[in-house]
Amino acid sequence: MSNVLVTGGAGYIGSHACKALKAAGFTPVTYDNLVTGWKDSVKFGPFEQGELSDRSRLDAVFAQYQPVAVMHFAALSQVGEAMSEPGRYWRNNVEGSLTLIEAATAAGCLNFVFSSTCATYGEHDNVVLDEGTPQEPLNAYGASKRAVEDILRDFGAAYGLKSVIFRYFNVAGADPEGEVGEHHRPETHLIPVMLEAIDGKRPALTINGTDYDTPDGTCIRDYVHVMDLVDAHVLGLKWLQDGKESRVFNLGTGKGFSVREVIDASGAVTNREVPYSEGPRRAGDATKLVSGSTRAAAELGWTPDRSTMPQMIADAWRWHQNGHYEG
Amino acid sequence: MSNVLVTGGAGYIGSHACKALKAAGFTPVTYDNLVTGWKDSVKFGPFEQGELSDRSRLDAVFAQYQPVAVMHFAALSQVGEAMSEPGRYWRNNVEGSLTLIEAATAAGCLNFVFSSTCATYGEHDNVVLDEGTPQEPLNAYGASKRAVEDILRDFGAAYGLKSVIFRYFNVAGADPEGEVGEHHRPETHLIPVMLEAIDGKRPALTINGTDYDTPDGTCIRDYVHVMDLVDAHVLGLKWLQDGKESRVFNLGTGKGFSVREVIDASGAVTNREVPYSEGPRRAGDATKLVSGSTRAAAELGWTPDRSTMPQMIADAWRWHQNGHYEG
Repeated sequence: MSNVLVTGGAGYIGSHACKALKAAGFTPVTYDNLVTGWKDSVKFGPFEQGELSDRSRLDAVFAQYQPVAVMHFAALSQVGEAMSEPGRYWRNNVEGSLTLIEAATAAGCLNFVFSSTCATYGEHDNVVLDEGTPQEPLNAYGASKRAVEDILRDFGAAYGLKSVIFRYFNVAGADPEGEVGEHHRPETHLIPVMLEAIDGKRPALTINGTDYDTPDGTCIRDYVHVMDLVDAHVLGLKWLQDGKESRVFNLGTGKGFSVREVIDASGAVTNREVPYSEGPRRAGDATKLVSGSTRAAAELGWTPDRSTMPQMIADAWRWHQNGHYEG
Repeated sequence: MSNVLVTGGAGYIGSHACKALKAAGFTPVTYDNLVTGWKDSVKFGPFEQGELSDRSRLDAVFAQYQPVAVMHFAALSQVGEAMSEPGRYWRNNVEGSLTLIEAATAAGCLNFVFSSTCATYGEHDNVVLDEGTPQEPLNAYGASKRAVEDILRDFGAAYGLKSVIFRYFNVAGADPEGEVGEHHRPETHLIPVMLEAIDGKRPALTINGTDYDTPDGTCIRDYVHVMDLVDAHVLGLKWLQDGKESRVFNLGTGKGFSVREVIDASGAVTNREVPYSEGPRRAGDATKLVSGSTRAAAELGWTPDRSTMPQMIADAWRWHQNGHYEG
C-alpha cells in the first residue's frame, strides 16, 4: 500500500482526509504535534507525533514510511490570533512549512498537496475570485499561506517538486458516519459555534459586524462540505501521480451565504432557536469570499454534491450531538 | 546623537545609507554578518558583526545602542541564486527579517525602514508599476521581500510598528567622493559587470536574452543613483520620526533603459568599447520594470537629480578605477 504523509492529520480537515485516503486505498501517516489536533481522531493509519520545525524527525519519518506524497494541513488557522500574534503565524506556518518542504525534497518525495485558503485573496469587492485573482491577503494567516504557495512554486522551479494547491473557502460539516468531526479549542468557526449556542453550551453567538456592504450587512462566505473537500485532495493526489503539472484549485461551490442566512438555516435544520447578539467587525475579515472558479470541477472532475447548507449543518449537528474527542 | 541600526550596513546600499545618515546627523550602527558585505566599507559609525537569526545578539545590540530606528538592508539579493537555492532565500531573508522585526518590537524600537524591491511586482506587461500594482513576484528573491513587507504590515497592526517600505528599481552608481562603492562577489549587476568587461577584468558581458518584447529585444529597467536612493531613506526616517503613518514608496525615476542602451551609454561615458555577447534569457527576469509612481517625490520631497545614466555610469566608473574593498 502507498503511504501518504498527512501533516495535521489529527486536525479537522486532516482527519477527514485520512479517512478519504484510506477509502481510496492509501495508508495515511499522520504527523501532528497535537497542539490543536486530537490523538483520538487518528483512526485510519499510523501516528507520528512531531513538530514541522524538527527536520531530523521529519527525515526519520520520510525514511521509515517512504511516502508517495505529502498532504500538508498542519497550520495555525485562526484569523483573530493571527492579527494579535503575527510572529507565531509566520514562524509556525512559513518556517515550519519550509522545513517540511525541504525535508520532502531531500527525501525525493516530490508530490505535494497543500492546504491553502481563499484568505490569500484578501478584499476584492465585486470581483469573482478565481485562481488568477491577485492575492492580497489582509492578515498573517492569509499572508503566511500565500508565502507557502510561493515556496512551493520556487521549489518546483529549483527541484522539480510538483504541487497541487487548494484554496479553501469555508469548510463545514462532518463525516456522516461519525468517525471524525470538527473540534477546535477554542472553537471559532461559525457553524459549530452556532450549534454550541443552540445547545446551550455557550451563551450566544456573536455576529462580528452587521455593517458590511452586503444585502443583510453580514459577511458572505462560500461553504464546502469537509467530505467534498477531502475528496478533492484525493483527486489532487491522483493528478500528481498521473504526472500532471503543478496546479492551483479553488475549492468552493460558488454560492455565498451571509452569516444571517447560516443562522436561519441552522434554526431550520435543528428546529431550535439560535441565540445570537450583534457585535463589531473583527479585524482582518473580508466582506465577501465566494469562489468564481469551476476549475476543480472541470479539470479534477470534482463534484461537491454534499455541499448544501442543510446537509452541512445536519452532519455538523449529528457530530455535535454524538461525537467528541479527548486527548 | 541618535543611533540608527543599519542591517547590511557593510553592503553596497547599506554603506551609502550609513554615509547619508551620518551627514544627516545620525549615528549609523552597522549590523552585518560580512557574508556579502565588506568590513572596509564600515566608515561612518560603529560595527557589530552578527546574524539576523541570532535573537540574543540582536537583543544585546538594541539594548546597547537604543536605536531610534532600524534600516534593514541585509538580504540575499541575487535572482539567479534565488532560483537555484530558494530555501536559502526564504530562510535568510524571511526568517532572518522576522527575528529582527521581533527583536525591534520587543525593544520598543518601532520605526522601521525596509529595503524592498520592484521584483515584488513580477511581470506586468504594459502596466505602469505604482505602489498599488498587485505584487506577483516571479522568484524567491521577490517573494521573500514581499513576505517581509507582509510581516511589517502584520506587526504594525499588532504592535504599532511603523514602517516605510522602499521598493527599489535598479540601483547604480557610487559615492562621488569615493568613500564607498559597489562591490559584490560575484558581481551580477549590469553596470559594474560592464565596467569590468570594458576594463578587461572579465572576458565579456553576456546579455541575458535578446528576444524580449521590447524595442531592441533586451530587458528594460529603471535606474536610480545610489546616493539619491539613500537620500530617500533619510527622508523616510524623518517621515516616521514626524509620526506619520506606515507607507510604501517606489524608488525609480520613471525612465526605462534597455540593456543595449546602458551598453551604449557606458561606451560613451568611458570612451571605451564594451565587449559583450548575446545569451539566452535568465530564469526569473521580468521584461520591463519601470516605476510609474511620483509618490516619493510628492510626499517625501524626494528629488533624484543624480539619477541620470551618464552620471551613474561616471560615478561607477570612478569607483571601479580607484576604489576597492578588502575583508
